[in-house]
Parts: sequence; C-alpha cells; structure tokens
Amino acid sequence: MKPKVGHIQFLNCLPLYYGLVKSEALLDLELIKGMPTELNNLLINGKLDISPISSIEYARHHKSLVLFPEFTVSSDGEVKSILLVSRSPIETLSGKKVALTTTSATSQVLVKLILSRGYNIEAEYITCQPDLGTMLAEAEAALLIGDIALRHYLDRQGMYLYDLGAEWKKLTGEKMVYAVWAVNRSFAEAQHALNEHVFEIFKTSMDYSMEHLPEIAEYAARWEPFSPFFLMDYFRSLRFTFDKEYQEGLLHFYNLAKEIGAIEEVPELEFISIHPGVKI
Amino acid sequence: MKPKVGHIQFLNCLPLYYGLVKSEALLDLELIKGMPTELNNLLINGKLDISPISSIEYARHHKSLVLFPEFTVSSDGEVKSILLVSRSPIETLSGKKVALTTTSATSQVLVKLILSRGYNIEAEYITCQPDLGTMLAEAEAALLIGDIALRHYLDRQGMYLYDLGAEWKKLTGEKMVYAVWAVNRSFAEAQHALNEHVFEIFKTSMDYSMEHLPEIAEYAARWEPFSPFFLMDYFRSLRFTFDKEYQEGLLHFYNLAKEIGAIEEVPELEFISIHPGVKI
Repeated sequence: MKPKVGHIQFLNCLPLYYGLVKSEALLDLELIKGMPTELNNLLINGKLDISPISSIEYARHHKSLVLFPEFTVSSDGEVKSILLVSRSPIETLSGKKVALTTTSATSQVLVKLILSRGYNIEAEYITCQPDLGTMLAEAEAALLIGDIALRHYLDRQGMYLYDLGAEWKKLTGEKMVYAVWAVNRSFAEAQHALNEHVFEIFKTSMDYSMEHLPEIAEYAARWEPFSPFFLMDYFRSLRFTFDKEYQEGLLHFYNLAKEIGAIEEVPELEFISIHPGVKI
Repeated sequence: MKPKVGHIQFLNCLPLYYGLVKSEALLDLELIKGMPTELNNLLINGKLDISPISSIEYARHHKSLVLFPEFTVSSDGEVKSILLVSRSPIETLSGKKVALTTTSATSQVLVKLILSRGYNIEAEYITCQPDLGTMLAEAEAALLIGDIALRHYLDRQGMYLYDLGAEWKKLTGEKMVYAVWAVNRSFAEAQHALNEHVFEIFKTSMDYSMEHLPEIAEYAARWEPFSPFFLMDYFRSLRFTFDKEYQEGLLHFYNLAKEIGAIEEVPELEFISIHPGVKI
C-alpha cells in the first residue's frame, strides 16, 4: 500500500505541492487534501500515515506520533494568513466575544495567549465556521486563517488587523511554528524504509520549491485571486524549516499553552531517524 | 478556480493517472478520486465539472451532461475486472439470488442483460458492499468490479467465473463501453477554453500512457498485489477509445437496457466540440 499522506489545502502548502508534482512524487504517495483540523483528525485516528498536524495537536497526541525532522509551517514574525480581524482596537476587547475559526487548532491557542499575555485581555471565545460576516455578527473580533485570511489581509474593509505571527514575535521574540509533520507511531515503527522514502520525496520537493518560488507564484496567480507579486511576498513570509530556533519557539509556545491549560504537558520533540541514501 | 475533475480509483484508470503525473497535469486540475458510483453522484450533483461516469448513468442524465470525445473505459471482449462469480454454473441461476456490488452502475445492468438475453435466466437481484464472502452468504452468485474482481480473476477458489466483457461480445458481437467521460453542461457552456484545456491534458496524458504501458505495469506492481506481466495483460484488455465501433456498441447496450426498463430513453451521444490548439 502506498503511504497515505495528508496535505494542507491552503496556499501556504502550495510550494510543497508544486514540488511534489514536479518530482512526480504523486506516483508514490496517496495524497489526501484537507483543512488543518480535518487532517489532524485523520492522522490522530490512524486514517493517515503521515501528515501535517497543527503543532498544538502534536502536543496533545505526541504519544502516538513521531515528528518528521526539517519540515514545519512557521514564520519569523509576520505570517499574513493568521489574523485577528477586529471591529475595535485589540486593547478594547476585554469581556468581548472573539470568534475562532473551526479550521484552526494552534491559532486558537495562539490568539488566547496573545490577548492574555500580550494585552492582559480576557475575552469570551466562541467557535464559528470561517466566514467573517457570520463571525462578526456574533462577535467583536474574529480569528481567520489560510486563504480567506489572506484575502482580508489585502482588503481590510476598515477593520483592525492583527497578524498573529508578528504579535507572537513582539510578545516573545521567538519564531512561531504553526504546523509540524508527524508520522503515526505504529506506521513509523513498522515502515522504516517508507518513512525515509517519503522524507526524501518531501526534501527533494521542498528543495525544488524553494529554488522556484517566483515560478510557483506565477503559477498560483493563474488560479488564485492574488497577484504573483503578493504571492511571492507571502511565500517569503513563510518558513518551512525546523531548525533549532524554531524548535525553541515551539517549546516556548508549548510552555505558555500549558500555563493556560491548553495542553496537559510539554512534549519532547521526538523525531524519526533518517539514514540518508536508503531506498525502497 | 481549477476544474474539478473526477478520477476512478481502480487499476483500469491507473495508466491515465500515470500520464497525468508525468505531464504535470495535476497543477492544472483539482483531481477528486473515488469509486465509479461516488463519482457518478458527484458529477450529477454538480460537485465535479468533468468526470468519468458509468455509461448507464450518462444515459440517465444526458440532458445535463456533454461527452468528452475519444475517452472511455471499454473492452473488446474479455475485460478481467467485471466478473460474475458464481457457486454454480450460470445456466442454473434461474430463481436464484445474484448479489450486485454497490460500486457499479453499468455492470449491474450488463449482468441482467447477459443473464436474461444470453441465458434466458430470471434471477433475483440484491445489492451488497463489494465483499465476496458477504455476497455469497446472501446469494448464489456475485457481481464484482475493479481491483477486487481482478484478485478473484487470479484466484477463483473453485468458483465459476464469467467475464462480462467476453459475455457481452458473445451475446452481441459488439464492443462494450463501461464508462465515458462527461462534462456538466453548465460548465461546458461557460468554460469552453477550460474544457479544451482539460481535453488536451487528457489526450497528452493518455498518449504518454499508451506508449509506456510496460513501465506503468512495472510501477503498479510495486504497490499492487499483481505481477507486471499480469498488469500488462490487463491494461491490454482495456480500451480507452471512443471510436465509431465503441459508439455503436454503446448504443446497442442502451437499446437493450431500454428494453429491460433500465433507462427510459436511448440518448444521443452529444460531444463537446474541440478546436485543436486552443490555449488558456
């Protein structure tokens, strides 16, 4: 059986997808696309072997998962696609309702941390489908992620906009890791060669992508309501690495998340071991 | 928006998929994979723009669909993956139960035609999930299609096996068209350039595939429980064309299907017009 691999259906993962197509990797993977929270559930329930997973969900389920090294969806400051959109300034949200998109897990915790730690604000949180009109009918501010957030980034319609990557950097000075790639532990233990094969495929694809970002931005602009220039700028805001500084940023996030009760324990970052050159 | 295109997740459509990957077509299509009956429903309900559809379902919904020229899943005689598996000889099935897989539409009609017209047998038909054990617990014979049928073709376990492609040829002397590719009429009318673009992508991919069948058989054998030799033989049993003889075979099938009340009318085969060389 081909490994069942999740793929986030947002522009943030389009560079990886582009690389996967160009390297013909889709012959060796069964790629299942979805929103982050859909993929989280599929991975946790064993319906996917390998998938991006919201970093907060990795912490909640780390006993049954092992991390892929080197890959994340992160930012070092501004991220553009994880936004708090508010009718009034963030400083005035105490006691107000904040609507959280159901498509996100990590950002739901991140926005609470930023409001409570960064602004000393206790808001009332509700969850909603990701539609700004509906959300702002129910609440004073709304957390949006992904492509829909990007559209509001470009057309803020008189709203106050807070970029949660930039806010996290302001609060902690750290990088922020929104999603990691994880392998189901049972699959990881039974399928060493396949793990490494998929890892190599990802690495080849991501290397290709990073060298062809302008081409990818041109391509994406054919199908998406964004200019190549803006897409290029967006792709450059994103980081896909899992270097030591990103691991530190993530552990810092986990520590704060534990303090507000969003996770029970700070997990160790446990990676699958990779032996370069192994072929299946 | 990229065109939403269905893809049959059976080995019979693997050559096309291989060509789509090799030609990097998956950058320009949103490919949705599924069983034939799943794709039928998605296309008919407008969730797909272009998709393979069981040929009998095209007849039932032809008013809202237009055909792609040149592409079908067909056979000229033996097909190997559409089988009636029976505990007793086909001649003895009168009054017995025959279990029909829920994954098929065209073959459900085809098996009734072959039993009634070819063998003068009136059986009792029930529908079941495609699991031979369950089916034969309920019935004397079972219609299986796709990869699960192929496995029984190779390991018949003392059962009587009837290949419906071969039986159709014996009954009528004709080719048999199991699936066609169709476009939602509203999409076809609004998106001429995209139709033609997808058609060209398919043509390029299929041409590539037909020239690389041994390579595709080798590749598929890495992931499937079949030898490259058997897969090659299987791919050669299949026909993907929609030549005049296949159109005649299909219309013959529709005429007989109408006689047994499986469709209300024999549709005209209405194709989208293609202007070679158009680029989007």
